[in-house]
Amino acid sequence: MGPISNGWFATCHKRRKRFFDLAGKGRSTFSSGRVPVKPLPKLTIPFGCFLCPGNTRINGETNPDYEHTFVFDNDFAALTEDSPKQVFEDGLLKAEGESGICRVICFSPRHDLTLALMDVDDIVHVVDAWVAQYEELGIHPDISYAQIFENRGAMMGCSNPHPHGQIWASRHLPNEAIKESTTQLAYHDEHGKPLLLAYLEQELALDERILFQNEGFVVLVPYWAVWPFETMVLPKRHIRSMEEMTADERLQLAEALSKLTIRYDNLFKTSFPYSMGFHQRPVDGEPHDEWQMPAHFYPPLLRSATVKKFMVGFELLGSPQRDLTPEQATQKRLDLPETHYLKG
Amino acid sequence: MGPISNGWFATCHKRRKRFFDLAGKGRSTFSSGRVPVKPLPKLTIPFGCFLCPGNTRINGETNPDYEHTFVFDNDFAALTEDSPKQVFEDGLLKAEGESGICRVICFSPRHDLTLALMDVDDIVHVVDAWVAQYEELGIHPDISYAQIFENRGAMMGCSNPHPHGQIWASRHLPNEAIKESTTQLAYHDEHGKPLLLAYLEQELALDERILFQNEGFVVLVPYWAVWPFETMVLPKRHIRSMEEMTADERLQLAEALSKLTIRYDNLFKTSFPYSMGFHQRPVDGEPHDEWQMPAHFYPPLLRSATVKKFMVGFELLGSPQRDLTPEQATQKRLDLPETHYLKG
Ligand SMILES: O=P(O)(O)O[C@H]1O[C@H](CO)[C@@H](O)[C@H](O)[C@H]1O
Ligand SMILES: O=P(O)(O)O[C@H]1O[C@H](CO)[C@@H](O)[C@H](O)[C@H]1O
Repeated sequence: MGPISNGWFATCHKRRKRFFDLAGKGRSTFSSGRVPVKPLPKLTIPFGCFLCPGNTRINGETNPDYEHTFVFDNDFAALTEDSPKQVFEDGLLKAEGESGICRVICFSPRHDLTLALMDVDDIVHVVDAWVAQYEELGIHPDISYAQIFENRGAMMGCSNPHPHGQIWASRHLPNEAIKESTTQLAYHDEHGKPLLLAYLEQELALDERILFQNEGFVVLVPYWAVWPFETMVLPKRHIRSMEEMTADERLQLAEALSKLTIRYDNLFKTSFPYSMGFHQRPVDGEPHDEWQMPAHFYPPLLRSATVKKFMVGFELLGSPQRDLTPEQATQKRLDLPETHYLKG
Repeated sequence: MGPISNGWFATCHKRRKRFFDLAGKGRSTFSSGRVPVKPLPKLTIPFGCFLCPGNTRINGETNPDYEHTFVFDNDFAALTEDSPKQVFEDGLLKAEGESGICRVICFSPRHDLTLALMDVDDIVHVVDAWVAQYEELGIHPDISYAQIFENRGAMMGCSNPHPHGQIWASRHLPNEAIKESTTQLAYHDEHGKPLLLAYLEQELALDERILFQNEGFVVLVPYWAVWPFETMVLPKRHIRSMEEMTADERLQLAEALSKLTIRYDNLFKTSFPYSMGFHQRPVDGEPHDEWQMPAHFYPPLLRSATVKKFMVGFELLGSPQRDLTPEQATQKRLDLPETHYLKG
């Protein structure tokens, strides 16, 4: 048994798969199975920001004087490489050990910026860092999925405002990646083209939920959006994962992220909280031509800088329920200025 | 087109089904499809509580001087009976109108109580009200599912502390009901007994996650729990839906709910927030012998009365991740006193 800090499952170091998947078929209710356990409590930052250049982190390491981005292994990693990988099975209860790598990506040396406040050229450095990480983790023999994400704002559990994101790379595919993989594969098998490209074609023709587009990317409100201001960023051509982007496309993605986050901030004149992340083809050695890479933004605000949408009772136990339509959520933002309210 | 206030979909009065279900197979990612839209903004309560006996509600009706429970049609219903039921289909986009009935159930005339503070005998009245509602809505020709739930506490979006719950009854099954139905049916077809009874048997034998039991009910932490203090209440014998309970079992359920909510409050010495609800067999005229009725409690707190678990980044985009094990979450509560801290 490894040390308590080394695995998702502090008690047994096993990734216990949801037993319903095994007892029934296609089960994903009753929440999503035995889930990873994070070993260490979150600490508050005592003597300054752990992410600023030149500062010393909790483990004694000193951050370099980085100019653009800086990547390091998460000091409180939920996944580690040496977690035992045994399988547990006892009647209806099933589990399996999960291992992986967790990293932090600082987006800028400046503590006071956010994607919405950064220049597009600086966001390109963030895109470059994501791509480099995705490529590096992608060739790791024990990694089959790399989840790049950002929790932005205290409302989204982010305790440090220094602009940063995370990557959790794991031996198995997480639930959401499995679901998107399955659906895209089924569509691709039947139609011979990626589902999300066919979907994008239809959205562009309808032009009811498009927020912004440039040569490479479209920012739109998905038809099935659950969060009030949920948004998706999609490449216009077939891009399975981010290393397939050209230099131009990296710039276009950076511009799309900038325009989207500026409009978010302008909506309620606040630093808009959200969780965002990229879903990309698994790095399990298969080609995955069915995959098209979306970025999803899930922001919690509903009516003002402080009034959030509660995903509670009926949402948790039944189905999501919206307070405004995706088309209203699109229009509200199309009406906003394109310049950040703090710079305008 | 009906008035703006009469449907889930303010723009089109259509329940747009997630297109992924139709384009792909078994799709439930990218969140859960085109979702209902709530028509009216939530109002703050200006001249006193809308739920107290004798007070006048927003629509001008006066509440009776009720002694135990009081049920009325939700003044801001998200589902109404007269919503148009047309089907919309355009390429990958599909939707269908949804209708239903939304009710509010006051648990007690006393504004200052909660389930945790109510006597078991008074909770029996709440159980009786749930059963009566379930039976009444169950024979409605246009209703196939009745979701009984409670959002407790401001952290769960509940704006009025007066003890109350809700019922949203709908023409179609909500997502979670579909998933639980599918899995239970598959298990029942194969094994000839209800999945949740087989599961309960195994949990009782292991006795690692049992919080409390009486003759009729078991309160336990499910093996697959996602929320830090997620809990499930299960009947010991085969009960598909609540009207099948005997009078004794109604009392035993009330006792189980009382013990559970008292322990919740004692954990962080606070009025513990949660969303709870019953999943029961659909009321679509089929027998549904595969069904066993669980009550699920999904509480947001993690470490104290104010420190909650954030279901964000990796949870939303990948898979849930726990900060303590289900066994730890069980033990922490087994160690607590059984008397409410305000009464002790
Ligand atoms: O019905 P209420 O109390 O107005 O609203 C609350 O419960 C609803 C059903 O779970 C949610 O959709 C709302 O977001 C929440 O604030
Ligand atoms: O990793 P952090 O910033 O400590 O923690 C945050 O992100 C994690 C991954 O989404 C979540 O599990 C935590 O609940 C959240 O507080």
